[in-house]
Amino acid sequence: MKRIGMLTSGGDCQALNAAMRGVVKTLLNSSETVEIYGFLDGYKGLIYDKRQMLTGKDFSGILTKGGTILGTSRTPFKTIQDPDENGLNKVEAMKQNYYKLQLDCLVILGGNGTHKTANLLRQEGLNIITLPKTIDNDLWGTDMTFGFQSAVDIATDAIDYIHTTAASHGRVFIVEVMGHKVGWLTLNAGMAGGADIILIPEIPYDINKVVDKIEERDKKGSRFTIIAVAEGAISKEDAKLSKKELKKKMEKNPHPSVSYEVAAAIQKKTGREVRVTVPGHMQRGGSPCPYDRVFASRLGAEAGKLILDGQFGFMVGYKNREVVRVPLEDVAGKLKAISPDASIVQEAKLLGISFGN
Amino acid sequence: MKRIGMLTSGGDCQALNAAMRGVVKTLLNSSETVEIYGFLDGYKGLIYDKRQMLTGKDFSGILTKGGTILGTSRTPFKTIQDPDENGLNKVEAMKQNYYKLQLDCLVILGGNGTHKTANLLRQEGLNIITLPKTIDNDLWGTDMTFGFQSAVDIATDAIDYIHTTAASHGRVFIVEVMGHKVGWLTLNAGMAGGADIILIPEIPYDINKVVDKIEERDKKGSRFTIIAVAEGAISKEDAKLSKKELKKKMEKNPHPSVSYEVAAAIQKKTGREVRVTVPGHMQRGGSPCPYDRVFASRLGAEAGKLILDGQFGFMVGYKNREVVRVPLEDVAGKLKAISPDASIVQEAKLLGISFGN
Amino acid sequence: MKRIGMLTSGGDCQALNAAMRGVVKTLLNSSETVEIYGFLDGYKGLIYDKRQMLTGKDFSGILTKGGTILGTSRTPFKTIQDPDENGLNKVEAMKQNYYKLQLDCLVILGGNGTHKTANLLRQEGLNIITLPKTIDNDLWGTDMTFGFQSAVDIATDAIDYIHTTAASHGRVFIVEVMGHKVGWLTLNAGMAGGADIILIPEIPYDINKVVDKIEERDKKGSRFTIIAVAEGAISKEDAKLSKKELKKKMEKNPHPSVSYEVAAAIQKKTGREVRVTVPGHMQRGGSPCPYDRVFASRLGAEAGKLILDGQFGFMVGYKNREVVRVPLEDVAGKLKAISPDASIVQEAKLLGISFGN
Amino acid sequence: MKRIGMLTSGGDCQALNAAMRGVVKTLLNSSETVEIYGFLDGYKGLIYDKRQMLTGKDFSGILTKGGTILGTSRTPFKTIQDPDENGLNKVEAMKQNYYKLQLDCLVILGGNGTHKTANLLRQEGLNIITLPKTIDNDLWGTDMTFGFQSAVDIATDAIDYIHTTAASHGRVFIVEVMGHKVGWLTLNAGMAGGADIILIPEIPYDINKVVDKIEERDKKGSRFTIIAVAEGAISKEDAKLSKKELKKKMEKNPHPSVSYEVAAAIQKKTGREVRVTVPGHMQRGGSPCPYDRVFASRLGAEAGKLILDGQFGFMVGYKNREVVRVPLEDVAGKLKAISPDASIVQEAKLLGISFGN
Repeated sequence: MKRIGMLTSGGDCQALNAAMRGVVKTLLNSSETVEIYGFLDGYKGLIYDKRQMLTGKDFSGILTKGGTILGTSRTPFKTIQDPDENGLNKVEAMKQNYYKLQLDCLVILGGNGTHKTANLLRQEGLNIITLPKTIDNDLWGTDMTFGFQSAVDIATDAIDYIHTTAASHGRVFIVEVMGHKVGWLTLNAGMAGGADIILIPEIPYDINKVVDKIEERDKKGSRFTIIAVAEGAISKEDAKLSKKELKKKMEKNPHPSVSYEVAAAIQKKTGREVRVTVPGHMQRGGSPCPYDRVFASRLGAEAGKLILDGQFGFMVGYKNREVVRVPLEDVAGKLKAISPDASIVQEAKLLGISFGN
Repeated sequence: MKRIGMLTSGGDCQALNAAMRGVVKTLLNSSETVEIYGFLDGYKGLIYDKRQMLTGKDFSGILTKGGTILGTSRTPFKTIQDPDENGLNKVEAMKQNYYKLQLDCLVILGGNGTHKTANLLRQEGLNIITLPKTIDNDLWGTDMTFGFQSAVDIATDAIDYIHTTAASHGRVFIVEVMGHKVGWLTLNAGMAGGADIILIPEIPYDINKVVDKIEERDKKGSRFTIIAVAEGAISKEDAKLSKKELKKKMEKNPHPSVSYEVAAAIQKKTGREVRVTVPGHMQRGGSPCPYDRVFASRLGAEAGKLILDGQFGFMVGYKNREVVRVPLEDVAGKLKAISPDASIVQEAKLLGISFGN
Repeated sequence: MKRIGMLTSGGDCQALNAAMRGVVKTLLNSSETVEIYGFLDGYKGLIYDKRQMLTGKDFSGILTKGGTILGTSRTPFKTIQDPDENGLNKVEAMKQNYYKLQLDCLVILGGNGTHKTANLLRQEGLNIITLPKTIDNDLWGTDMTFGFQSAVDIATDAIDYIHTTAASHGRVFIVEVMGHKVGWLTLNAGMAGGADIILIPEIPYDINKVVDKIEERDKKGSRFTIIAVAEGAISKEDAKLSKKELKKKMEKNPHPSVSYEVAAAIQKKTGREVRVTVPGHMQRGGSPCPYDRVFASRLGAEAGKLILDGQFGFMVGYKNREVVRVPLEDVAGKLKAISPDASIVQEAKLLGISFGN
Repeated sequence: MKRIGMLTSGGDCQALNAAMRGVVKTLLNSSETVEIYGFLDGYKGLIYDKRQMLTGKDFSGILTKGGTILGTSRTPFKTIQDPDENGLNKVEAMKQNYYKLQLDCLVILGGNGTHKTANLLRQEGLNIITLPKTIDNDLWGTDMTFGFQSAVDIATDAIDYIHTTAASHGRVFIVEVMGHKVGWLTLNAGMAGGADIILIPEIPYDINKVVDKIEERDKKGSRFTIIAVAEGAISKEDAKLSKKELKKKMEKNPHPSVSYEVAAAIQKKTGREVRVTVPGHMQRGGSPCPYDRVFASRLGAEAGKLILDGQFGFMVGYKNREVVRVPLEDVAGKLKAISPDASIVQEAKLLGISFGN
């Protein structure tokens, strides 16, 4: 007999359901008797004991379903250790609910913030298995996270759509892609969509270099330029500022996001019409792509196996196309960013893509 | 021997290429010898005689291609009669270029603004055939315009994507759909995407009614609400203002669009988290949907036939699923908007959709 | 208080769920108290009283869901009046179950065969409302049936995929499209996919004309030819045979379908490599396209309104873009086929498409 | 100054154009002057010197285009060394054409057969660089081939479509997936589509085990079963036969493919209705998926770099998410099949998928 808790935390993404289905199918196909409790809306559900008992039927037909059947919410790691507005010690509350249900293991699906809290609970003595979910692909210890490839597909679609309209009107078009801290999604969607310029947080840009590229294209007879800009793209000057200085500067910034700032600068320097498109939350939604369905199912299956084997304290990750287990303490608090020297960056440059640097 | 000019004007949309291919295939499959001149970037190409001679090969493989192979630009009707910055009389220039090439006919693909200019050229004595292109479906004299259904598909995809993330997070989500003057696109995408509230220019909204609907859903246990808002949606108060008063008010408006205004109002009145997604120019892009490909090809074929028959001064439209010819003077300057009493509005209400009125 | 039965019969298609959701939402949004019984697997469920009581929750989230939540099966009209293997009078059984539940109305979603049975039940005194479901678009009395446009989209995708491979290899490719009796689906998908030749049941083909077209393309430098063939396409010789003679001939036919027969004939006459692709049942599957979602929802809403108004004996159809009610006795037993003189056929010919006749 | 020849050989697939664009962009962005000759229709073009000189413009806008702009054909390795019907020594002819144009390098895109010939030409002294193209993912020396993920997406779509119709009718449905020798495509599409049974060449099946799985699902209340069958799936008995015996048996086989054979066997043993769907050549077609576009572009860039560096005799492959160069002699003649012990197979079994063994 195994009693399993499960929760999804942080921004939702594709294949959360596929991953949970993988865990549950593996458990139900084993010789063990299994009870599964789904905590609702992320860590909140565990703190306030909002949960549902789940059966195999709840996981039938959800392989292709976007979002998460458990609901999710962002519970910032920073505040999880503070008491709530009624003075409740949230970490203690989670522990109590875990022990009250006599759980054998808690399966947590989430990204960076989620993993910090997951590691905290592990340190507190709970049996934890995590699964790496994020469209950002910035989790340390795994080559890939689920949600990423589905988000690449949607962001690429956006660039594809914009391509025809940019070409028809001879315009500069910016497509803003999700990613505040890392540029994996922007880089891949940009390359897939044939963007001419890609601006990512890891490679601060010089607006003059961006303008140079547009004018170089102009001279070669290209009527239009497509720029993929990560939400967290940053100029070389801003990259030199301290966090405080940057925050101060941002407060006075009239532009809703860096894309609009880049657009305004190009417009000013070139006199060209620049348009911005922001697919935004669309990038988290919809049915997971086949890659993510297979990938999340594989990770889920391995998580199920770990539970059956009584192996806890791991994130199930992916290395060299094989599913691996990574100690949770190695994962928490680290970020997997793009190295400006990475071979994919060099290859993008060979293709003529400018990073504006 | 027929000499044909062709141009696409206004915002680009899907199936422009499919329609032109239809015209050209029909001409080339006839016993006539045909010369085709493509004017570049809309009326500009006709004014400044920027053009390419085109052969059947140029129209091969473009049935499925988004945008327009001729390029386009917006030349507002209001200024087309004014001289340009060098004092050139633009209408005279167009006439001269038409006669210089000894054109038998000019085929013009465009929306409302384009049709006003087309009708002007007809009044000036040119042989004109037009084709109704717009994602807005607001051209008078035709049940349907090409580009519309493709745009519905993309806007619906956007709502579908948002649906999963809205459901996972229990949020109110606004999807802003293109359409400044009419709500056809928003209404159809909203119904197709299962939106709970649809705000369109033709039916001014009361923000309290919008909030009522959200709270009614809340009481029934629905965690989230999806609102499809047309770019030109307007509140009841604003609808009472004169154009001047409205313009003045808008200048002080801190919100980039009506969607953000609605979002802020809901957030203020309900305390709920509201997110806005703006697919924007994506709605004009990409390969035309099968419906538009068939539809635009049929209209193009009829346009070709009219040219061969020497019948000019018509827009080729669609009535009761049949291709029809509509006198250009009947079309120009009119708008096809949604009547608040239209049966589709009544049916939407039966389905429980609120128009916020 | 209204008690409503509902069933889906015949081959499944897209937007069945959307249509049922439309009916139920309309009923539940009214002031009436409503009980809804879903009969399972078509008329079988009504005959053997296999049913589920359904609530609003069962219809939540199914707008975009393919298939039918009630299940379906083909119960040929011809045998519905015969007793079953246990001697049960099936028509009587349906009547008894209808009266036992004290139903106010039975809502039936189906195609041609389904409508014959629905009309029979109407003649027996039951209150019947029907909705026109079929990918074939061959129901008399309505311009459109739901499922059709979604099937066009899938069949067009198939042709689009085949296009690139046909062009790369310089081959003749046949795509077999569903439709035994009528060619609406093949004609529309063929035009949307840019097929060079379209063979449909309504226009018997001459294989020599088909070969002529291939060779004409060859001479013009086109490396490949795409042929869209309806399942029920028929040669001129076969069209002259009596049903009996045709059946006899078919029994000796070594080809699994007409597409393979056409392929073999072309291969023999031209020495060219011909490939056949059969998307088959894929054409019935997947999420309904936005067009079908709006259309089916509108029809469903009107059906709900008819029930509330106590108006029975109608199919809810579509004429000139408006929802209409058509007496069931006018619909049953008739087929809406393509006239060889229809304007869409003429327009296809102007575009250079051959019907092989 | 560099003179480069390029050809695509074997069955076409997605991202061939993206890969060639990567090579050419890299060369044109370098300081070298470059001449590029495209040989048409695979090795045939090299043998008979059918070619086109290509410029950067030819590679513009083809990132997203399916098929190959050079055309392709299958020239079996076995016959390439034999003289043609006019007695021409084909290998000598290829060498002569290579030297006549004073090529610095020949870039060859293809699968297994193509690589054997490429290695032969390398042994004959030509400078060769190859790129791994195949939807089968069966090339030795690389973790991945382009075309594969796009084909997975299409085959998964097919299974998704079939899912709704199978569920509605309560049927057993077989989807036949491409792959005569290996099961990568079937395994991945099967897992992504939620297939219940997956039959691949590497794991011979026992029809009784297949039937067991169907009946087990039946007992659990599942109305339907989806089976993904590779073209080269083989029963345990047949796997024991010699090639000769198998060929003999196949000649008498009344079924057009193994899927129909499996269908007939299930129908016979269970009395259930079984339907077969064969997406076939659709799996090679259409626009490459974003994954393939990025992947093929990266490989193409590296191939361009190798040419600029004067490094020949390599296939550009992919290992552990990095682009690598693999000696051509190591690649030729080997097959990368699925090991029945591979972790992905074990994970699929944990998920409850039966391999019928």
